[in-house]
Amino acid sequence: MNTQVTTAVNGVNVEALLAAREALSDAPEGARFKWRATSEWVNGTHSRSTVEGFYGLGAEQKHRQKFQFDSDHPEVFASEDKGATPVEIVLVGLAGCLGAGIASVAQNRNIQLRSVKATLEAGMDLQGILGIDENVRNGFDGIKVHYEIDADATQDEIAALVAQSQKRSAVFDIITNPTDVTVTVRKG
Amino acid sequence: MNTQVTTAVNGVNVEALLAAREALSDAPEGARFKWRATSEWVNGTHSRSTVEGFYGLGAEQKHRQKFQFDSDHPEVFASEDKGATPVEIVLVGLAGCLGAGIASVAQNRNIQLRSVKATLEAGMDLQGILGIDENVRNGFDGIKVHYEIDADATQDEIAALVAQSQKRSAVFDIITNPTDVTVTVRKG
Repeated sequence: MNTQVTTAVNGVNVEALLAAREALSDAPEGARFKWRATSEWVNGTHSRSTVEGFYGLGAEQKHRQKFQFDSDHPEVFASEDKGATPVEIVLVGLAGCLGAGIASVAQNRNIQLRSVKATLEAGMDLQGILGIDENVRNGFDGIKVHYEIDADATQDEIAALVAQSQKRSAVFDIITNPTDVTVTVRKG
Repeated sequence: MNTQVTTAVNGVNVEALLAAREALSDAPEGARFKWRATSEWVNGTHSRSTVEGFYGLGAEQKHRQKFQFDSDHPEVFASEDKGATPVEIVLVGLAGCLGAGIASVAQNRNIQLRSVKATLEAGMDLQGILGIDENVRNGFDGIKVHYEIDADATQDEIAALVAQSQKRSAVFDIITNPTDVTVTVRKG
């Protein structure tokens, strides 16, 4: 008998992730992470944010490099458009999280991905943030995400990849469920 | 009598914003925006997202330039750390939104800002996303934002700036309240 076992190559180290799950099951305090960003006002609605360090596995950690992000409002809001609008940056976070999940689940299920493309669209009625109508929320009225995925799998298997990624996505949870935000201020 | 009226210069065109509020009160369909991002899987947990066009004021709009974002997982997750982690990108969106609001409210109140610095920290127990404990949520267990603001204003006035920014912030609303996310998939 000539059986051939091929292993999907998606660039995800699933063995390491499964080992981490095993290790963190026995040492749950290592699973407690703290993610951070700092931000500095530049001018007008333009801010620059930096991501560099975080806490996890019981110790301070650092990214391989500092990541910087400019955010601003577009010209139709009489701003200078020096960066993406903050709400668009939230969509970027959602896309990144679901995408990482799809690749990880595909690897775990030995499904070879060839391409994964997402388009995201979120409606927002500015009557909220402009204070025109108190009944209109400030944020999105909903987000639509559409994936086009080319992979060695059936349509159903591909749909199941995306469903599992949603089920375990941190950003999907942050957006679809309430999260407390506490803000403090000091004159400095 | 020799009165001197100084006008704060924070780089925000408040007159244009107030005019927009007036105009959109009479033409609410112009206030319906659609924000967008596209995203493409690169390798492993690394995706690249692009922000370029959006819809608003009744027409398709474009940013002055295309904004691109790499997202990835860090090396402690056995990834290559080619970009910020998606959850950190959400913090960047929150910082950008509150920062733009603080500058806009300061301008409207004629308060001169000198510096606005924020530090953000969000706890997350990985037992959620790793599927170790079904009772642990995938997302943040809370976000702490701390501002240090140097401005021509009292501590109370500065605190009121931040409070008003929170009250009108789209991203603050998206994170603190639930938002529907609908995901569709096509084998392509």
